[in-house]
Amino acid sequence: MTPPAVDFWFEFASTYSYPAAMRIEALADAQGVRLRWRPFLLGPIFKAQGWDNSPFNIYPLKGRYMWRDVARVCRDLGLPFVQPAQFPQNGLLAARVALVGLDQGWGADFIRAVYRAQFAESRIISDPAVLQAILVSLRRDARTVFEQAQSAAIKTRLRENTEEAQQIGIFGAPSTVTADGELFWGNDRIEAALAWAKAGQ
Amino acid sequence: MTPPAVDFWFEFASTYSYPAAMRIEALADAQGVRLRWRPFLLGPIFKAQGWDNSPFNIYPLKGRYMWRDVARVCRDLGLPFVQPAQFPQNGLLAARVALVGLDQGWGADFIRAVYRAQFAESRIISDPAVLQAILVSLRRDARTVFEQAQSAAIKTRLRENTEEAQQIGIFGAPSTVTADGELFWGNDRIEAALAWAKAGQ
Repeated sequence: MTPPAVDFWFEFASTYSYPAAMRIEALADAQGVRLRWRPFLLGPIFKAQGWDNSPFNIYPLKGRYMWRDVARVCRDLGLPFVQPAQFPQNGLLAARVALVGLDQGWGADFIRAVYRAQFAESRIISDPAVLQAILVSLRRDARTVFEQAQSAAIKTRLRENTEEAQQIGIFGAPSTVTADGELFWGNDRIEAALAWAKAGQ
Repeated sequence: MTPPAVDFWFEFASTYSYPAAMRIEALADAQGVRLRWRPFLLGPIFKAQGWDNSPFNIYPLKGRYMWRDVARVCRDLGLPFVQPAQFPQNGLLAARVALVGLDQGWGADFIRAVYRAQFAESRIISDPAVLQAILVSLRRDARTVFEQAQSAAIKTRLRENTEEAQQIGIFGAPSTVTADGELFWGNDRIEAALAWAKAGQ
């Protein structure tokens, strides 16, 4: 019997992935559910639905609501939140660095720091200097990490993640997927996903 | 000082309005929040966003997920759920009857019965015979009620509701709006809306 497990699919540009990323590890630990962080890119998935931008920008009513709602959700969770001037931001480099970090044991801390930088500290996460500062705070050699992040192997891994996300029906982020393939979309469904993972054992 | 109050904006065609409609009254009562049922039509609001159908039909990935998610949500709430063969259904007549019922004190029971008919009993709610059976079960004279529902006054009220929904930024259903104008979208946000209504007093 394998322990209960979920994959947490996140995109750095995604607003609701911020509160989800900040809290899922503690929730999974408390439930005894193994957590695997799965960075991917929403761009190709949105393109397949005919969108060349975030739906929150394409549909302004929904976008205006989302910013208000995310602010409320973060406040209720005790998370700092400042609406970024730029949205969506390009999370490509951050996602590649996250894959390196996940291989090396500092991935989750890096992921949370990137979300904090974007949604609490008004930093631009496509700026390598911002990521570099985070790497330094994690005592990593930034030049080495960036080289690894831009390797063919890591680029392929991120592309494959995105293809896998598309294949399993993911259409937004965050998405939490149980070992038996049950898909839960949104920060609102993390508890349900973990409960499903536990019950399925 | 007025008691805390929310408007519950619902559309009979909306899937997530079903669990929301089934539970909001008990939740509002428990919190001492006054509840006003506000039927409206999503069609004109979707049209303004360029949609001539439910977004769950326009974006099949999202639609497939929604059916699965609604089924899970209903199961967790102990609500029967059967995916209707027809979606979305035309809720125009039901919404007009609901307005009559809300004036006469049997509106909430009618609303819940219509949702049950559509999402638990596989009935077609645009069929007057289905609504008639519900009215009979509520001991109303169906012919009189249908005449009232098709009056110019009720038609205008429903149109005005939809216009008001659009004006206050509603883009989907259900939406719960507090007396101070805070908008909460979705079955997932009912508790937050009631908490906001209470805290604002």
